[in-house]
Amino acid sequence: MTVRFLMICFGLFWGVCAQSQQKYYDAASFPLYGKVTNETGSRYERLPASLEGQVRDRLFYLGTNSAGLYLRFRSNAKTISASWELTGNVGLNHMAAVGVKGLDLYGYKNGEWRFVNSGKPTGKKTTATIIDNMKGEMCEYMLYLPLYDGLEALRIGVDSTALIEQPQLASPVSEKPVVFYGTSITQGACASRPGMAATNILSRRLNREVINLGFSGNGQLDYEIADVMAGSEASVFVLDFVPNVTNQQIIDKTEEFVRRLRVKHPKTPVIIIGSILFPHGQFDQHISAVVNEKNESLAAICKDLKKKGDKYLRYVSPEHLIGDDGEPTVDGIHLTDLGFSRYAENMYPIIKKYLKK
Amino acid sequence: MTVRFLMICFGLFWGVCAQSQQKYYDAASFPLYGKVTNETGSRYERLPASLEGQVRDRLFYLGTNSAGLYLRFRSNAKTISASWELTGNVGLNHMAAVGVKGLDLYGYKNGEWRFVNSGKPTGKKTTATIIDNMKGEMCEYMLYLPLYDGLEALRIGVDSTALIEQPQLASPVSEKPVVFYGTSITQGACASRPGMAATNILSRRLNREVINLGFSGNGQLDYEIADVMAGSEASVFVLDFVPNVTNQQIIDKTEEFVRRLRVKHPKTPVIIIGSILFPHGQFDQHISAVVNEKNESLAAICKDLKKKGDKYLRYVSPEHLIGDDGEPTVDGIHLTDLGFSRYAENMYPIIKKYLKK
Repeated sequence: MTVRFLMICFGLFWGVCAQSQQKYYDAASFPLYGKVTNETGSRYERLPASLEGQVRDRLFYLGTNSAGLYLRFRSNAKTISASWELTGNVGLNHMAAVGVKGLDLYGYKNGEWRFVNSGKPTGKKTTATIIDNMKGEMCEYMLYLPLYDGLEALRIGVDSTALIEQPQLASPVSEKPVVFYGTSITQGACASRPGMAATNILSRRLNREVINLGFSGNGQLDYEIADVMAGSEASVFVLDFVPNVTNQQIIDKTEEFVRRLRVKHPKTPVIIIGSILFPHGQFDQHISAVVNEKNESLAAICKDLKKKGDKYLRYVSPEHLIGDDGEPTVDGIHLTDLGFSRYAENMYPIIKKYLKK
Repeated sequence: MTVRFLMICFGLFWGVCAQSQQKYYDAASFPLYGKVTNETGSRYERLPASLEGQVRDRLFYLGTNSAGLYLRFRSNAKTISASWELTGNVGLNHMAAVGVKGLDLYGYKNGEWRFVNSGKPTGKKTTATIIDNMKGEMCEYMLYLPLYDGLEALRIGVDSTALIEQPQLASPVSEKPVVFYGTSITQGACASRPGMAATNILSRRLNREVINLGFSGNGQLDYEIADVMAGSEASVFVLDFVPNVTNQQIIDKTEEFVRRLRVKHPKTPVIIIGSILFPHGQFDQHISAVVNEKNESLAAICKDLKKKGDKYLRYVSPEHLIGDDGEPTVDGIHLTDLGFSRYAENMYPIIKKYLKK
């Protein structure tokens, strides 16, 4: 008992020491990427503040989730930690809390972005060590923010004697981002950690900023979102909205949504993806019929738009996009890290081709 | 408002109808696989009741988690649902609740086991539709149980007019199972759903019952567990315990653990796997040094045991076991579905070779 007591005392003492050695810096001092606009209510939101009340409340709320946003800095710290406060402390039963409301640190090593470690959330406020025992060499870092929650505040902790500085490496390239629009799948459900959302995987592979305009259940071709997207300096638009709209909505709204992008982007490639073939559709006859009908409508509309003269539009058939073994989702719909890896793997060459042009 | 009220009324009415059309059957009527022994306290546990008080409390508790257990039945239902009560209602921040305490249904189609859909937990007690709108053809099913929680009760629901019967297909083959021993990773952290734990993926691929004796943080070479394993009719033993033991424990206990298996299994293949190379070890110098030291010790001990005459022992080097891109974990340690897919893919031919002999 005495030994145990001493061990607890030592543990507490050690914990305090370790904590006191970290110095925290407001993340507001470091550049944030993945935003389609800077006219947001708070720094860690995605949609313009002016849209509040102009679009459905749920859609605007989802815009306050920090999906796809990432902070860049460099440091020679041996230990990196973070302290963050969430706006919602959201809980989902089909997605790990690290993906929903945790952080995900990558470091640039040997010419590529490598996973360092994740910050696991413990509640509305968390202070957590992300990585420890590093060499203490200067390194460029990228910190992905929560996919399904928002941030009230974020501070980065490094050893009190370490440097933390502005990034020097221009990677991922932030000019002419790729702009994704879509559903919960685009937003990142159900990546185990933020870095495994398809948009973030693609950003690393393409070495290009990718903007995530995925809105869970709400990728419903709202024209206001098309207008926001049109205002960006996009190199490529990728639209992956089918699971959130009815067949009638596809017929009624796709052309106008694209037309609004075309106002300012007459020649920017627009890649439109059919709905992934939900694995449970192998058993659920209804869902597979609905998906097939919607994909056929969308393919026909894209064909028609091309016929009408849009040379920069491409429809991507979703067949084989997430593999054919039925395994890459948690619930038939939402992709796991396995599904996102396959999706990114298959979308990479398609987007890459347009970036080269 | 009136329309909305009517819609709500219709929704409730429909919900009641849908519910009343399902008839529930106690899962105790159907065979359960993945158990190393039937001498357990309750049906959905993994360790013999006699071990209570004989092994560490935490280890015994983890044995009450239903990792790797699966129910078999067949039915011509159009809708399948389940009602289950958990022993703990466990919550983990690095793993989706579906994997922790949900259900996962597979169906046998075109000669292979295919994902049907998962049962998402909503609390200590859940009643959930797993799959709907099926053709109503007779099909063999396999239902994986929670990985990180236990079951007080489980009932399977099918349409009130549908048949639910004993399985007729002997798949996965339940004679001479493969017996896995290990850590949280073996237990299934952090699969998004039960079917994606490595042991369950391997069971489908090998078409063989695979017994999961993974104990989170507690794969510490307890000899009592070796004795339990020795009492099974294993075709192959796979030991993957390194992350849970110190280097000294490896040196002190590995030989005796194997010796206890050999008492009843002199010629059964024993595959011993080194610790996966944790991706964050690319940055955390301490963890990579610890892992390398332990793997070297284990490799040396295996070499020594072979030299002493054990012809049926094999050490598997963990290099490349989960790929080299640093992406397959949620926190540097615990595998996601991406990691488990790679682990199973790489272990499959190794185990398969021994099953053929």
